[in-house]
Amino acid sequence: MTKEVSNKQVILKHYVTGYLKESDMELKNTTIKLNVPKGSSAVVLKNLYLSCDPYMRYRMRKIEGSYVESFIPGSPITGYGVAKVLESGDSNFQKGDIVLGRTGWEEYSIVTATQTLFKIHDKDVPLSYYLGIFGMPGLTAYAGFYEVCSPKKGETVFVSAASGAVGQLVGQFAKMLGCYVVGSAGSKEKVDQLKSKFCFDEAFNYKEEQDLDAALKRYFPDGIDIYFENVGGKMLDAVLLNMKVHGRIAVCGMVSQYNLEQTEGVHNLFCLITKRIRMEGFLVFDYYHLYPKYLAMIIPQIKAGKVVYAEDVAEGLESAPSALVGLFSGRNIGKQIVVVSRE
Amino acid sequence: MTKEVSNKQVILKHYVTGYLKESDMELKNTTIKLNVPKGSSAVVLKNLYLSCDPYMRYRMRKIEGSYVESFIPGSPITGYGVAKVLESGDSNFQKGDIVLGRTGWEEYSIVTATQTLFKIHDKDVPLSYYLGIFGMPGLTAYAGFYEVCSPKKGETVFVSAASGAVGQLVGQFAKMLGCYVVGSAGSKEKVDQLKSKFCFDEAFNYKEEQDLDAALKRYFPDGIDIYFENVGGKMLDAVLLNMKVHGRIAVCGMVSQYNLEQTEGVHNLFCLITKRIRMEGFLVFDYYHLYPKYLAMIIPQIKAGKVVYAEDVAEGLESAPSALVGLFSGRNIGKQIVVVSRE
Repeated sequence: MTKEVSNKQVILKHYVTGYLKESDMELKNTTIKLNVPKGSSAVVLKNLYLSCDPYMRYRMRKIEGSYVESFIPGSPITGYGVAKVLESGDSNFQKGDIVLGRTGWEEYSIVTATQTLFKIHDKDVPLSYYLGIFGMPGLTAYAGFYEVCSPKKGETVFVSAASGAVGQLVGQFAKMLGCYVVGSAGSKEKVDQLKSKFCFDEAFNYKEEQDLDAALKRYFPDGIDIYFENVGGKMLDAVLLNMKVHGRIAVCGMVSQYNLEQTEGVHNLFCLITKRIRMEGFLVFDYYHLYPKYLAMIIPQIKAGKVVYAEDVAEGLESAPSALVGLFSGRNIGKQIVVVSRE
Repeated sequence: MTKEVSNKQVILKHYVTGYLKESDMELKNTTIKLNVPKGSSAVVLKNLYLSCDPYMRYRMRKIEGSYVESFIPGSPITGYGVAKVLESGDSNFQKGDIVLGRTGWEEYSIVTATQTLFKIHDKDVPLSYYLGIFGMPGLTAYAGFYEVCSPKKGETVFVSAASGAVGQLVGQFAKMLGCYVVGSAGSKEKVDQLKSKFCFDEAFNYKEEQDLDAALKRYFPDGIDIYFENVGGKMLDAVLLNMKVHGRIAVCGMVSQYNLEQTEGVHNLFCLITKRIRMEGFLVFDYYHLYPKYLAMIIPQIKAGKVVYAEDVAEGLESAPSALVGLFSGRNIGKQIVVVSRE
């Protein structure tokens, strides 16, 4: 006979307009039977770590025909998680396995789309890193920088939201290649971390700059070869004025815009012509085939201390709504994760 | 002894702000000695045809460090022209040669930068075509479509300002490759011409559309693979909503914006990410190496009637200011040229 246990969940109450608030979500106490439904090939997961990612805000509105689907109001939020397999109806997974994949914002999940789960083999690293440097944000940084930016040694690179889950890695990859790298972030603490921990050549607090164009000219007197775009809006406009001829802009995210009902207009696109700039959006999903190669490269780098990674850890599912909201005010320092359980 | 002859000129009176007006230019009666200055390798040109191009508006403001220089207030406007060599101090050119190159908006010019002149060999075509299909706009269409758009047979192509000097060719190139092609233009006459003369699959008058997004959805129910961008602003915003995944936008011009002191903001750039769009600006100058190859391809096509070209001809240097101004209200139908003299 299957035991029924309590299962706390984070529910999206409704589609969200304007700035995301904690009250757009609610904690709900439910129960769950921890068994694989008869005849099903689902797996029963105990969720350990959950990932807070900016794209999740996008899923909180009604979306049609895009690369992701809307969350379902009244249901738990879903996202990337690291979880332990409690029961498995799929021969690819055994009880006790640790997996990375799409799961629910709840203590236990029954996942039927097991093809989206990835079995974690190397557990000799912090497991939460599979939500960051060893997961989607890591591969995003890797594919975005190496595949989209066409970087060359000696080029000048600017990264916005540079202390975030993706930005901190882009900067380190660019340094490893011999580029000059400058990052922007939203607090003194983050700026200090960019220079001291992640070895950016320079960093600045965009909130303290009256004139972003002037700030960029200070750090890039000869212009920017590569812009790794995470924020959009005013920063993009200032960057366009400071790109070099034949520069490249990899558009990874536009986090400054996700909570706006009417996005800011970008005015300087004419620079794309005068400077022959390539601006290219990308999604990590198109680069999943590179994941094994990336993992094989990055895990030894972390173990050897040649690459470092910063996480911001929220304790307990109760803290998840606040952690997610914090992404959009830049409260987190480094990759934001939520610990549901450590075992 | 050198004869001095009268030389009418079109002078830029001052840097221009806002919408270009005829009164920003003035006609001036001057005189010129039609000889090569002693010890110089200049050529003396009799100007036959002058080109009106949207980028010229850009040169009417103060520009620093761009791909072109500002015009000099108080001096004649300069641009592409077809001219006859009257005297030559450069052994590459002989009296009687017909050349294409940068010349002045005046009856006679003395050009010292003779390396910018190209000797026209095939005169068995309308000479003014060297300002259009056989010149800079032609190579722009060719390089922009084949080199920047990465087109494939069967793809869907949208061209704005489609009846213009560049657009009409892009559409024909796309049809030759087996694409589905739709163009936008600003009058019924232009729209009719796009369908009947240039063989676009569909065309529409953007001025009659309340909702550009809806118009594009009507012609591209499954989305746009390639957008050849000539106008910018609201059209670009509507196109972004209608691009297909992995679509390409070749940014050739943004003529709707050139007379605005504050350009319109573009709001839908987030689509670059969700649809993994590549948006790339280009300038024809980077593709001059393709010019001989292009000419060898296009001249026989015109002679065989497989490609057609529409010109809008203004008679006399006096009509040049009005012809240039007309570009920005879309008065011209086809490539706008000015006839200074036919021989």
